[in-house]
Amino acid sequence: MNASLFRSVIYVTALCALYLSIAMFLPALVDLYYGHSDWQVFAMSGFMVGGLAAAAALATRGPQPAFTKRLGFLLVNVLWVMFSLVGAIPLFLAEHELSFAQAVFESISGITTTGSTVIVGLDDMPPGILLWRSLLCWFGGIGIVALGLFVLPFLKVGGASIFKLESSETNDKPFARLASFTRAFLVVYVLLTLACAVAYDMAGMTHFDALNHAMTTIATAGFSTHDASFAYFQSTPILVIGGTFLTICSLPFSVIILLAIRGRLDAARDPQIPTFLGYLTAISIAVAVYHHLRNGVELDDALIHAFFNMASILSTGGFASDDYTLWGPFVVLVAFFATFMGGCSGSTAGGIKAYRFVVMLNVARAGLNKLIYPNAIYPVRYGALTVDAETQRGVFLFVSLYIFLWVVGSIGMTLFGYDILTATSSVITALSNVGPGIGQIIGPVGNFSTISDPALYLLSLMMLLGRLEILTMLVLLTPVFWRH
Amino acid sequence: MNASLFRSVIYVTALCALYLSIAMFLPALVDLYYGHSDWQVFAMSGFMVGGLAAAAALATRGPQPAFTKRLGFLLVNVLWVMFSLVGAIPLFLAEHELSFAQAVFESISGITTTGSTVIVGLDDMPPGILLWRSLLCWFGGIGIVALGLFVLPFLKVGGASIFKLESSETNDKPFARLASFTRAFLVVYVLLTLACAVAYDMAGMTHFDALNHAMTTIATAGFSTHDASFAYFQSTPILVIGGTFLTICSLPFSVIILLAIRGRLDAARDPQIPTFLGYLTAISIAVAVYHHLRNGVELDDALIHAFFNMASILSTGGFASDDYTLWGPFVVLVAFFATFMGGCSGSTAGGIKAYRFVVMLNVARAGLNKLIYPNAIYPVRYGALTVDAETQRGVFLFVSLYIFLWVVGSIGMTLFGYDILTATSSVITALSNVGPGIGQIIGPVGNFSTISDPALYLLSLMMLLGRLEILTMLVLLTPVFWRH
Repeated sequence: MNASLFRSVIYVTALCALYLSIAMFLPALVDLYYGHSDWQVFAMSGFMVGGLAAAAALATRGPQPAFTKRLGFLLVNVLWVMFSLVGAIPLFLAEHELSFAQAVFESISGITTTGSTVIVGLDDMPPGILLWRSLLCWFGGIGIVALGLFVLPFLKVGGASIFKLESSETNDKPFARLASFTRAFLVVYVLLTLACAVAYDMAGMTHFDALNHAMTTIATAGFSTHDASFAYFQSTPILVIGGTFLTICSLPFSVIILLAIRGRLDAARDPQIPTFLGYLTAISIAVAVYHHLRNGVELDDALIHAFFNMASILSTGGFASDDYTLWGPFVVLVAFFATFMGGCSGSTAGGIKAYRFVVMLNVARAGLNKLIYPNAIYPVRYGALTVDAETQRGVFLFVSLYIFLWVVGSIGMTLFGYDILTATSSVITALSNVGPGIGQIIGPVGNFSTISDPALYLLSLMMLLGRLEILTMLVLLTPVFWRH
Repeated sequence: MNASLFRSVIYVTALCALYLSIAMFLPALVDLYYGHSDWQVFAMSGFMVGGLAAAAALATRGPQPAFTKRLGFLLVNVLWVMFSLVGAIPLFLAEHELSFAQAVFESISGITTTGSTVIVGLDDMPPGILLWRSLLCWFGGIGIVALGLFVLPFLKVGGASIFKLESSETNDKPFARLASFTRAFLVVYVLLTLACAVAYDMAGMTHFDALNHAMTTIATAGFSTHDASFAYFQSTPILVIGGTFLTICSLPFSVIILLAIRGRLDAARDPQIPTFLGYLTAISIAVAVYHHLRNGVELDDALIHAFFNMASILSTGGFASDDYTLWGPFVVLVAFFATFMGGCSGSTAGGIKAYRFVVMLNVARAGLNKLIYPNAIYPVRYGALTVDAETQRGVFLFVSLYIFLWVVGSIGMTLFGYDILTATSSVITALSNVGPGIGQIIGPVGNFSTISDPALYLLSLMMLLGRLEILTMLVLLTPVFWRH
């Protein structure tokens, strides 16, 4: 740890804050256009943050130190905390009264693409604040893919193994040219958003709703412009569009990009993709059949709602088209466990992620065989590749920490007075960046508006921990990190 | 797989069934003494099973094949299934009407030292059946320690790592002389049971209650002779005695034996012991303070009940002195998560067990350090020893399978129509061999009498899987096991 490292962290953070402050003028313009006084809040926040950020950037200019792991870890943490706090400023100052804890929670919920909201009365909200919430999600989505593709692999956290696997699988280092890949990613991300917006628009949403929902769909975030979320639209085509885009955005962006730009399907051999699509299909059908048999809902209706809501949970989007917790205990429990699972690595989805399940399954298979022939070699496979012992340990370590945080966080929530369904589901929906929980308060038709400030801080921490794949944050607590 | 192997399995199983059939004459004598007609059921079952077993043993006599892993796995599975079914015979035939599924559940609950019961009206039950339930637990306790000490290590399941650690730690192979160790274990087990019975007796239990509760306490099983379990006695000394013996019997028997017989404390350096005692103390105090502050219960009363009930869950005994699920959501959730944890390896306790938590914690610590210095060596410690990569993987594999079975089993229970609290807590209490669950039906003041037959079969399977450390049973499903 030395001065030039801190200077460098502040410099990059200030630059990013500057970009975010510029984005604040978008909601300002929209509010101005619609004649809502909140435009002043956004403009003022933009100038204030922009001024401070510019000053900080100027003050810390200078030669950049070599990029080390320490710098990487510190930078990622500081950047996400900055985004969380700066994103909260206009939410806190806007006309709609939010406590500071609520504003921070809402901002973190956006930037981590979680999509849990503390705001009631979205339908009558000024457009600026709605757009700002969607923008936070959309930027958060970019941040997450960037983190997963470029930063985490280098830091050997989470994305690490899969990155190594991918690059050796395609065998020509598709990510070696970071700049061109970043450009390709941004183009695909923007095009997907536009395609989704146009589809929503054609299916009957207003332009404004279509744009906002497209941004939060592509980021698998879950903020809506209506309290009722997708139930507001009462439209089958909109559910199909939403479910489809949520599913696409749960796949590794590298696969989408290679397909879109080079017409190559090589990376689609990544075994996490059939795994993810497999369990999405399986639980959608199981839930639909159960809903049909138990509640007498038409099978096609049941299928569409089951697909939309399960895709919404597994993609960690967290929209809802219905209160599926009323469909029966089987659906409640499937939804609860699905909240842990998540999408694929390299996407905007959170959760434990499909590739870890693939690795664990193959370790289990090899381990069982080894019980009979302890001296035989049963390599653990991931597609055509062998998973080394360290990567296996990393996967189990991550999952253990995930569950440990869920347990500790849930117990913390009961100390704040919440019942055990609210406690356990709020923490896992935060950690997996999904959005809705289970139970009366935070279920798919509920929200986080009545959650107390201390509990919101706890859940905010969980959202950040989940988003940064836990270890990226925990490593700051080790003495080794701060040595020298 | 060959004929001599099957012959050998049948021979050993028949011999064990013969011993069990002899034990049936104990409840027969007791019922005869008290003049209850059930004596005929036990006597008849004893003659029937004994006759069949003797015939089978005679028919399969002959030279024993070499002991292989295959033989070991097969034998353990067949033995436990035999105990489960033979134990159920008198329960099914007795005057008190149980369905076949209920009788099998009750028998498995005893033999796996789980202690969940389907019987209501224990207080008015003939003594023979009460004694038989206690005997099943007590034999089950012997079976489990024997399994953990002698069989699982050889098969490299569960106990494996800890066994290796223990024997190299004490450095003089204390378990090399199996026969003398087995004798020592049986002596200690019997003496502990007698000590516990005398203590209960002096504290006010009837002789019969004292003996039965001593057997189910030492086996950390949880069957009681009263529907109200320990709440029936309304006695602080009895709670202290029970909690203390449950705690002792959650420690590795090797430690107790080395201490008792050789006056050696070496093995007590096993790090799982301070870990287990540490979290038992921590959650007992936390629960007591919460109970005191929230419900205004006197602190000393709260401490005693918190200690007894938490020791009861962690030791996987599963007695209850009060409906702790009414103490508040914090206690409910702590009790729920405590149901996963379990005692130490080499004891009669079930659950994930303390040594696995020690290993996982140390893997996490090494993993975090490695993020900063990926090329440095951070060995994973267990006490003074280094845990090799394969053992680490084994621990994570076991825990993952444990959670996987809980998830699948819980979803299964919702398909049988149970609410999610009953579903999730029934499966984990079965898998960890604890006893009570959470919720209206199977909570600490409830029982399993209203659970449907298919659900009882599912839970019976979970009890066996948990008791045999999962892998011992799952290995039978691998194609490798049956090859040749």
